Amino acid sequence: MEFSREELISSVSQQMPAMRWQHTQGVMESAVKLAEKYGADPVKAERAAILHDVAKYWPVKQMESVIRENDLSKDLLFYDKSLWHAEVGAFVAKQDYGVEDLEVLDAIKYHTSGRIGMTLMDKVVCLADYIEPGRDFPGVNNIRELANHSLEEGLIAGFDSTISLLVSRRQIIYPLTVFARNDLIKQLEANS
Amino acid sequence: MEFSREELISSVSQQMPAMRWQHTQGVMESAVKLAEKYGADPVKAERAAILHDVAKYWPVKQMESVIRENDLSKDLLFYDKSLWHAEVGAFVAKQDYGVEDLEVLDAIKYHTSGRIGMTLMDKVVCLADYIEPGRDFPGVNNIRELANHSLEEGLIAGFDSTISLLVSRRQIIYPLTVFARNDLIKQLEANS
Repeated sequence: MEFSREELISSVSQQMPAMRWQHTQGVMESAVKLAEKYGADPVKAERAAILHDVAKYWPVKQMESVIRENDLSKDLLFYDKSLWHAEVGAFVAKQDYGVEDLEVLDAIKYHTSGRIGMTLMDKVVCLADYIEPGRDFPGVNNIRELANHSLEEGLIAGFDSTISLLVSRRQIIYPLTVFARNDLIKQLEANS
Repeated sequence: MEFSREELISSVSQQMPAMRWQHTQGVMESAVKLAEKYGADPVKAERAAILHDVAKYWPVKQMESVIRENDLSKDLLFYDKSLWHAEVGAFVAKQDYGVEDLEVLDAIKYHTSGRIGMTLMDKVVCLADYIEPGRDFPGVNNIRELANHSLEEGLIAGFDSTISLLVSRRQIIYPLTVFARNDLIKQLEANS
């Protein structure tokens, strides 16, 4: 049985530190705004936003078990642990919170990495995660500005900032993010 | 029948503008030095260097035909044309110049993109292409410096400069280059 909005908020907020819940509230606010602006369902967008980081503070071993035992991308295990919570979060949203809506589940699943062929809902939640009011990193205001004009332009700038950060830190780049970015550029070129 | 060094130089140099042949001579020189320093076969490295850009000035349509008709990566056609000459060059090296040595052919094939599991010869030729004396781009001296200590460190810096350039130009990033870079970082971590 699916949780009501209030039940979700009450339960999810208890699973993370106050700072992270504050971030989640920011993502809820930004996701609703972006959904209204770009024609996505704001109720679904908010639901995905509430749940997007539900697994963020799970112990690594527990995330690993969920990935191994439930047919999630085994590929993930070769990449940074900071990516795991997204796929695990989508699993938890379905399993523990009764979310059945694939649009919501996919938006949770791909909120960190993006993917080829991002749906409108994927784009809204992923971009909201980059630009929510509490975010403060080099270039965030440029991404906020772009988000006023185009989901895709905002996301490309967001992914580019992630890729540049990983390059500068000499960390592994998750290929799906590169595929997602390339795909968005191709989409814009095809529509121009 | 395989061409002699002199026959190769004579034939390949005629297939490109003087500036590009000068670049090729730089790659030959750097590839031999790197091969000697890191224990690769300098004769093979030079042969790959001579041939690495043999198809660089082919008409696009001709490259496309070779890719389509000869079982080269069809994937390539979705990416920038500047990548095509490497695979086509390896095909030409075998077909027209009688090169049978897989080490040489692969070094030509992957000299622009890199790949997962780069061989010593792949690394030598790819890095030589970044640092040959005629190259002048932001960061090239840093890559030259790193190349004095480690093929892998030099290549990671080279790939990072390529990825950063593509990000700044909002161009498509060839995923194989990201895979190659990630793989080199993992290799260094595993050996440290």
